[in-house]
Amino acid sequence: MDTQNGNNYVKEVGKPKARFSELGFRFLAFSLTLVAAILVGVDKQTKIVAIPVVSTLPPLNVPVTAKFHYFSAFVYFVVVNAIACAYAIISLVLTLATRGGSKGGLALMITTLDLVMVALLSSGSGATGAIGLMGMHGNSHVQWKKVCNVFGKFCHQVLAGLVLSVLGSVAFLLLVVISARNFQKKHM
Amino acid sequence: MDTQNGNNYVKEVGKPKARFSELGFRFLAFSLTLVAAILVGVDKQTKIVAIPVVSTLPPLNVPVTAKFHYFSAFVYFVVVNAIACAYAIISLVLTLATRGGSKGGLALMITTLDLVMVALLSSGSGATGAIGLMGMHGNSHVQWKKVCNVFGKFCHQVLAGLVLSVLGSVAFLLLVVISARNFQKKHM
Repeated sequence: MDTQNGNNYVKEVGKPKARFSELGFRFLAFSLTLVAAILVGVDKQTKIVAIPVVSTLPPLNVPVTAKFHYFSAFVYFVVVNAIACAYAIISLVLTLATRGGSKGGLALMITTLDLVMVALLSSGSGATGAIGLMGMHGNSHVQWKKVCNVFGKFCHQVLAGLVLSVLGSVAFLLLVVISARNFQKKHM
Repeated sequence: MDTQNGNNYVKEVGKPKARFSELGFRFLAFSLTLVAAILVGVDKQTKIVAIPVVSTLPPLNVPVTAKFHYFSAFVYFVVVNAIACAYAIISLVLTLATRGGSKGGLALMITTLDLVMVALLSSGSGATGAIGLMGMHGNSHVQWKKVCNVFGKFCHQVLAGLVLSVLGSVAFLLLVVISARNFQKKHM
């Protein structure tokens, strides 16, 4: 009976703190992925580039625009961040609705979906990081020239979105760890 | 007392199956990430490419080689798959050593590291997928030409490694879900 009471005491003391952490991380994940999706989704830069046409005439000044949807990696990034953002707000509402903390199949579903968000956001960040790095440095082996020297503002905005998205995936990762830690506490 | 006995019965019956699944998924994750790292890590293709030098002379036939380490995304892919592979075998040994299933801090550490592997492998797959897609289709907006029409075998080998790595990350993801499910079973 003493042990049982002790366990109940741990559960009662531990719950509000764990619940506060969960709500906090869900709100953080929502905000970070929302801003990341917006930052990359509205990213656009137009520059006047001098293009030589005939050697005897001065070069033509042509406006060239960089948009996020020119790169499938950036489109994927916006889509996964939008999915994660929508899921974060839905799971936040569900967590608030089940006031004492979700149980049974719902809790398992939320933990599994948190995990899927970690995977989706990580793959989106990996894809955007790879294309962003290529845009910054280029690759001489395949003659892919760097473009960030021309579209600096565009690249910096993608970089800002990338950092926020990585932080968002860390928030989802911590949510899964919190579930695992709660399990540990209840069995120790 | 009846309920307690019932719970013990569930634990006794449930354990071997869950343990078998865990060992199976760890071995699967090890094999998949090992083969993925090797496939991309040894990927190399040399092709004779005709390069025109002077318009009055026939083009020069120059051997051009594609290697995985020309692309930082592929290097990252090999590194994360090697890390995941090494971790999978270490965690497999640890799971076998703690015969009744790991408990306490060790179990939490293993679940957290499984989760980190999901994130690392997903980011590696995202990066490789983005560069692979660029190699297959190119991008007219930034004048990055496709290269897979020349280095077909090289690209197909990367694609095979990518598929295996994604399956490896799914194996780690299922390992985390198994932990969460075990927790659910013990609390239902």
